[in-house]
Amino acid sequence: MPVPYSRLTAQQAEDEVKELYDRYEAFKSRGVKLDMSRGKPSPKQLDLAGNLYETLSAGFTAAAGADTRNYGELAGISEMKEIFSAMLGVPADGIIVGGASSLNLMYDTISRAVTHGLPGSAKPWKDYDKIRFLCPSPGYDRHFAVTEHFGFELVSVPMTEHGPDMDAVAWHAASDERVKGIWCVPVYSNPTGAIYSDEVIAQLANMKCAASDFTIMWDNAYGVHHLYGHAPQQANILDLCTDAGHPERVIEFCSTSKITYAGAGVSCLAGSPGTVKAALASMKYQTIGYDKINMLAHARFLGSMDNLRAHMEKHAAILRPRFETVDRVLTEELGGLNIASWTKPLGGYFINLVIQKNKASRVIRMCADANVTLTGAGAAFPYGKDPDDSNIRIAPSYPELEELETATRLLSVCVKLASLEKQLA
Amino acid sequence: MPVPYSRLTAQQAEDEVKELYDRYEAFKSRGVKLDMSRGKPSPKQLDLAGNLYETLSAGFTAAAGADTRNYGELAGISEMKEIFSAMLGVPADGIIVGGASSLNLMYDTISRAVTHGLPGSAKPWKDYDKIRFLCPSPGYDRHFAVTEHFGFELVSVPMTEHGPDMDAVAWHAASDERVKGIWCVPVYSNPTGAIYSDEVIAQLANMKCAASDFTIMWDNAYGVHHLYGHAPQQANILDLCTDAGHPERVIEFCSTSKITYAGAGVSCLAGSPGTVKAALASMKYQTIGYDKINMLAHARFLGSMDNLRAHMEKHAAILRPRFETVDRVLTEELGGLNIASWTKPLGGYFINLVIQKNKASRVIRMCADANVTLTGAGAAFPYGKDPDDSNIRIAPSYPELEELETATRLLSVCVKLASLEKQLA
Repeated sequence: MPVPYSRLTAQQAEDEVKELYDRYEAFKSRGVKLDMSRGKPSPKQLDLAGNLYETLSAGFTAAAGADTRNYGELAGISEMKEIFSAMLGVPADGIIVGGASSLNLMYDTISRAVTHGLPGSAKPWKDYDKIRFLCPSPGYDRHFAVTEHFGFELVSVPMTEHGPDMDAVAWHAASDERVKGIWCVPVYSNPTGAIYSDEVIAQLANMKCAASDFTIMWDNAYGVHHLYGHAPQQANILDLCTDAGHPERVIEFCSTSKITYAGAGVSCLAGSPGTVKAALASMKYQTIGYDKINMLAHARFLGSMDNLRAHMEKHAAILRPRFETVDRVLTEELGGLNIASWTKPLGGYFINLVIQKNKASRVIRMCADANVTLTGAGAAFPYGKDPDDSNIRIAPSYPELEELETATRLLSVCVKLASLEKQLA
Repeated sequence: MPVPYSRLTAQQAEDEVKELYDRYEAFKSRGVKLDMSRGKPSPKQLDLAGNLYETLSAGFTAAAGADTRNYGELAGISEMKEIFSAMLGVPADGIIVGGASSLNLMYDTISRAVTHGLPGSAKPWKDYDKIRFLCPSPGYDRHFAVTEHFGFELVSVPMTEHGPDMDAVAWHAASDERVKGIWCVPVYSNPTGAIYSDEVIAQLANMKCAASDFTIMWDNAYGVHHLYGHAPQQANILDLCTDAGHPERVIEFCSTSKITYAGAGVSCLAGSPGTVKAALASMKYQTIGYDKINMLAHARFLGSMDNLRAHMEKHAAILRPRFETVDRVLTEELGGLNIASWTKPLGGYFINLVIQKNKASRVIRMCADANVTLTGAGAAFPYGKDPDDSNIRIAPSYPELEELETATRLLSVCVKLASLEKQLA
């Protein structure tokens, strides 16, 4: 049984540090170079999509007759809308199929809000002295960065295992009409793996907002990305917003980036008829249409929700051992020491490790010195600043199993060292 | 020899009108339905690209080693940069390869100028009471629409056969720091087919501008789209702007939309190192990267500039008879009547027809009543308003030759009728 670090004698602690430094130096001298910084699919996962462009040997004509090689069809082709419709539980006429990046659709939505406003806006957001945006933290750095780029004030709200702390969210939303929205990853939230509860979803849909154009940016990035075949039954936020009388409150996003190809998938914006109409009314100035050939190839390859689920099982078979390796090594190395806790997500792309306060930057730097790149300290918090400096996001998808075990052991050694340094100091 | 309409006697005019109405009704009763409204490639042209995704059977690895299926490479892959570099005469490190739509890159550039400013901007354009943008007219409706969408005042400047009237351009640019830029299609300008002269290009690069961030939106949409193999040697505007000490004055755009697939090509933004740096600094919030698989497939299919030129010859072989059919029918029907003139472009996608004042809307409506759709009257002018109501844009690329002949005869009949109606009234 491991002894909690807090109960070590001074001598025990000193011996432990010595041994840990030896291990650390041993890792360093092995000269491995690993990157666990981003939620990047591994080549094996990308191989699962084979060469999906082979489906184009059947020609370029979409089901409804459009030549996908030519201009037109701003909202995308129906067969790809149907797939996203089934994924999100939004009617097909509430779907716009975009290009390779759902982040781009989110950015464009925020940009449009700034320059022109959204449905329900009294004026464009640029005409306010200040816009505030709610950022459940830890969360996704690229979300926060978009709103920071436009000069919004990022308001951190705590993340719980059931979604954002709704007392904080509701208070901010009700108190200031310049609080214009919130970033959400409702399933296997980045990075904690939290699944929003139906209660949280109902509160988001029904809460009183000072802003008539309060917007929930609902990034369902991991909605079908289960590790254990559990498909969480989740309340339908668009239906709830519609029932509550403000169907435009939520805009949903997703993509096939972690289903087919991370750099060349198909993205989606979904929402109420009003949301889709407003988005298209602006998009028509932006483009004549997104890449329909890629939509066609994807629709043919994915085929149906049953096929898609079977395909995601193959991803799970590759990812599951990686998540379990990280969990096993963390348990072996850190279990019982009372210096760290970590998530055991049922899906998604991340394990979130929380260590002692004021230690995360130090640990991440030590790992970097040994050529293991982790997500930057604080990245999961607004402005890249973790107030506790205790949060470390682990992205286990890309490395091979053996590398992952090595990297996780190194990380664990660094966590232990940093903890003991504190006690010794 | 046809007699100019102005010299017809009243009786002759009346007889002519009667005959023309009979012809018009005959067209109408044939029940054909044709669309010549947009510069859309024909299926035969799209077939020229075959199934370019077959090149992906050689795998997904880019020349420099990147897995095009995964995240990364915000500026695009080098092999596609090289092709655009050769097309535009801009060094490869001055190239960003985008998604399927160059219009989207242009829109994003203007949007970025509004929200954040461009290199050289004293402040974001949203912080001016009014932004003015120069629109050489007739010009491209989608260009004008982007700047109108952002609330800019569109300032019409006359188009000549050598480019915009530089006296007007220089006067506006020098007189007001809120005049922030100009839309240009330097080769085979939409819709007149004008080719910018080196003198005009030098003036654009060297003129004194009140705005430090005056921006030339240089849409080289038809730079390799020759009908007669003539490759106009044109001064390099980026080099001239650089020599003049403001390398960021010009931002260039192009795409393969009318080389490979109109709905699924690859686009490009090009400019000085400062332009590229600033664009990437903003794009990184927008996307992790554009579709690199499509870039790879395109680079492999297009191969080299020699191949690309040979490929464009095949487009010319399909397009040339179409342009010549329109010209022949217009000559047969309207030649010598002194009621119309039209362009005989050496490339691009349009023939521009100028008829008598206050007649274009009437003619376009009559054609529509006979199921031939032309570009809307005034579309080539700011705010969709042709001050003379005399300009008609003909897009001959899409219809089959026989249909095109029919449609052009119908159009000619309508032009003649409208001219005589005036004289009779």
